[in-house]
Amino acid sequence: MGWGDLGAFGEPSKETPNLDQMASEGMLLLDFYTANPLCSPSRAALLTGRLPVRNGFYTTNAHARNAYTPQDIVGGIPDSELLLPELLKKAGYINKIIGKWHLGHRPQFHPLKHGFDEWFGSPNCHFGPFDNRAFPNIPVYRDWEMIGRYYEDFKIDRKTGEANLTQIYLQEALDFISKQQASQQPFFLYWAIDATHAPVYASKQFLGTSQRGLYGDAVREIDDSIGKILKHLQKLGISENTFVFFTSDNGAALISAPKQGGSNGPFLCGKQTTFEGGMREPAIAWWPGHIPAGGVSHQLGNVMDLFTTSLSLAGLQPPSDRQIDGIDLLPAILQGKLIDRPIFYYRGNEMMAVRVGLYKAHYWTWSNSWEEYSKGIDFCPGQNVSGVTTHTLEEHTTLPLLFHLGMDPGEKYPLSFVSAEYQRAMERISDIVQQHKATMVPGEPQLNVCDKAVMNWSPPGCEKLGKCLKPPKSDPKKCFWPH
Amino acid sequence: MGWGDLGAFGEPSKETPNLDQMASEGMLLLDFYTANPLCSPSRAALLTGRLPVRNGFYTTNAHARNAYTPQDIVGGIPDSELLLPELLKKAGYINKIIGKWHLGHRPQFHPLKHGFDEWFGSPNCHFGPFDNRAFPNIPVYRDWEMIGRYYEDFKIDRKTGEANLTQIYLQEALDFISKQQASQQPFFLYWAIDATHAPVYASKQFLGTSQRGLYGDAVREIDDSIGKILKHLQKLGISENTFVFFTSDNGAALISAPKQGGSNGPFLCGKQTTFEGGMREPAIAWWPGHIPAGGVSHQLGNVMDLFTTSLSLAGLQPPSDRQIDGIDLLPAILQGKLIDRPIFYYRGNEMMAVRVGLYKAHYWTWSNSWEEYSKGIDFCPGQNVSGVTTHTLEEHTTLPLLFHLGMDPGEKYPLSFVSAEYQRAMERISDIVQQHKATMVPGEPQLNVCDKAVMNWSPPGCEKLGKCLKPPKSDPKKCFWPH
Repeated sequence: MGWGDLGAFGEPSKETPNLDQMASEGMLLLDFYTANPLCSPSRAALLTGRLPVRNGFYTTNAHARNAYTPQDIVGGIPDSELLLPELLKKAGYINKIIGKWHLGHRPQFHPLKHGFDEWFGSPNCHFGPFDNRAFPNIPVYRDWEMIGRYYEDFKIDRKTGEANLTQIYLQEALDFISKQQASQQPFFLYWAIDATHAPVYASKQFLGTSQRGLYGDAVREIDDSIGKILKHLQKLGISENTFVFFTSDNGAALISAPKQGGSNGPFLCGKQTTFEGGMREPAIAWWPGHIPAGGVSHQLGNVMDLFTTSLSLAGLQPPSDRQIDGIDLLPAILQGKLIDRPIFYYRGNEMMAVRVGLYKAHYWTWSNSWEEYSKGIDFCPGQNVSGVTTHTLEEHTTLPLLFHLGMDPGEKYPLSFVSAEYQRAMERISDIVQQHKATMVPGEPQLNVCDKAVMNWSPPGCEKLGKCLKPPKSDPKKCFWPH
Repeated sequence: MGWGDLGAFGEPSKETPNLDQMASEGMLLLDFYTANPLCSPSRAALLTGRLPVRNGFYTTNAHARNAYTPQDIVGGIPDSELLLPELLKKAGYINKIIGKWHLGHRPQFHPLKHGFDEWFGSPNCHFGPFDNRAFPNIPVYRDWEMIGRYYEDFKIDRKTGEANLTQIYLQEALDFISKQQASQQPFFLYWAIDATHAPVYASKQFLGTSQRGLYGDAVREIDDSIGKILKHLQKLGISENTFVFFTSDNGAALISAPKQGGSNGPFLCGKQTTFEGGMREPAIAWWPGHIPAGGVSHQLGNVMDLFTTSLSLAGLQPPSDRQIDGIDLLPAILQGKLIDRPIFYYRGNEMMAVRVGLYKAHYWTWSNSWEEYSKGIDFCPGQNVSGVTTHTLEEHTTLPLLFHLGMDPGEKYPLSFVSAEYQRAMERISDIVQQHKATMVPGEPQLNVCDKAVMNWSPPGCEKLGKCLKPPKSDPKKCFWPH
């Protein structure tokens, strides 16, 4: 989902009344980012409070490449990483993940081995060739065992786009909340649904209800679900004791537009890129009685902050034995303070850009290769900023491209290198980047090796269901990451 | 000002708390248009309820050219046109225009000859070469006579961007409202301020207060002023008896970006074009106690509707002796009804595009000429949709380019000509266009002839001020309209 997909963020059809109301009762964060323009690394960052280049969710197979956790990925979240639910446990929290895990699907990476007490959802994304031959269909787990597979037991009609998965995930969330409220135990619910990822789907009751086509139907279903979750918290009388945060793991994918692609509002490009459209996210914080209603914050935020902020809410300290990139946003959210901090935009193993205040400096620019682009793969459809949305990986490290995101949120007008403004801004930014690089200790890259043998052929529980498939012989290879 | 310039419409710095509050107390109209992507024709349409091609605010000097009323324009609003204030007079309204008139500056076009009772403002825009030699500085009128000139008596500091004009216009509005309330006479106030037109200015107290630079400062000052006007109505106890509508006369000008250019949100291109960015406008209706608070409407609206809607509010009928393009929006605004009507996008004498429902068909496409473009004049900076943002005036009348604005608000993905959806939509659109063209009676074009002798050399009242300038000899010529 993209920054521009919500009515409160200016989507012209304004079809998200529940999220808009959530914003009017809570706080809109307009300058909130993901840690990576792609799903898995972004989620790894959220749960560890650390940049993907630290927690291992990146590749060194090639320079500045986006990588994630497809079915044949060998790596996953290292045991050495401390995940938010592991830490929350110490404060008595019961932790549940509903939806897409995406931090590795081999046994050692199972969410219940990394702090979660319950899981209902899938280890990988719901796309695939869906034939159970070359690739197995993705399993859906309840806790330790699979209970079926997408497209087989959990239907997704690729022709009509009908699937009731969001409803299933919603019910699972409502039930978990009720159970926790009844047992008076504090809880962390990570509601990480698949929608609106392509192939886009929505339940029957939402199909055809949006001006925006199937993608809009999916957004409406999410909006409706969030509304039901918030109302459920209110009905149970625990809304003033529950912090809720809504955001997305990367900018809207524009390659699947217009029928399955979302909106990044006025920003440049989309998912896969380190332009604003790829990494600036819709974000709403909600906590009635604590967060002043109708608030707006320009605090530079990041999904990694949800790690630190959640710990703070639970009265816990972040780990002191490692670099944590997330900050505690509570002073910004509760007291309207502005904390000075940079935002780093990574693509794989490369820091492509950095934002400090209203300035964003691009040290490298790339959309995708000419080769891909010539095949119709376009991360910036209809947009072309000369020297910025480049189709070769361009280095600007000696003279970064600098943008003023206040005057130029669309990154169209690089500041003149000889201007005093450029000199002044870059002086500060250079110091920050230098320090960042000097102290950077990259983690072991987890997204380098692929092997078809590790795919979801025979997940635990497959025997009971008669759904075990025979894996091919192990043949580990360097994963190929084209962009 | 553009669709994307307000917080409520998704501007990322969200610096318009008063307009956003106006929206939350009233109704946001998300599909509201101007009648032309340029100032004068748009304003002529607003005040006559008729398309510029009918009321004469267009040119036939060349095909599909934008034209307006610069200082050397000979034409202006014809006496045969019935303006909103002329009609409101019949219902006892006192009518005032504050700000830019722009419907011709020669004596016969004076606003007080066309229904207004009072005027404080200028006949033309505040730009110029500002030297009082080749071009006189634009006069500022109080009613029948000029009381000074821009840059001389009404300062605009082009270096700092400081000018207190919006404050002067605000005070004038507050005074007029107070006077009318005291005299218990109904009033029509047309608050048509110059800001945010380039060269952009703001008062000292707003300079440097925006994340968006000088343009943002100007937007903030407008926002603040609207807030004060609405509060004034409330303080006087007449808010429930006063209908207020906020909109703009064309999309944000992108040629003056980033320092002086606004935002058209997710839409394509800007001012001067018939893409959504050129003609879709921010629009808010406010009438406490009548318009349900927090409403959102997808009614296709147009500035021309303000003519018909205002007459309706005053209990008057629109003239029946001529074609009126505006419709009465009250059923949409007060009762949430959706009235089926097309939106026509004209550039000069050519219908470039038409919107019917969510479909928009382009019969002609043009941004500007290669010649202009090569000089750096760009109405679509950073945007390039192949075959759509064309630099030659392209005809598509036999096979219009069709977009679904719900799925594709940015006009990036033309529908396939051979699709059933295309056939179905175009069938309906073709009928509407055919009828529109068959019954079209163009007015006498007013924007064809220019003559330096008619400029604001010696406006009435100049003698008293010693500010009369000697006009050159009359030398009427065809005006040159480059795009």
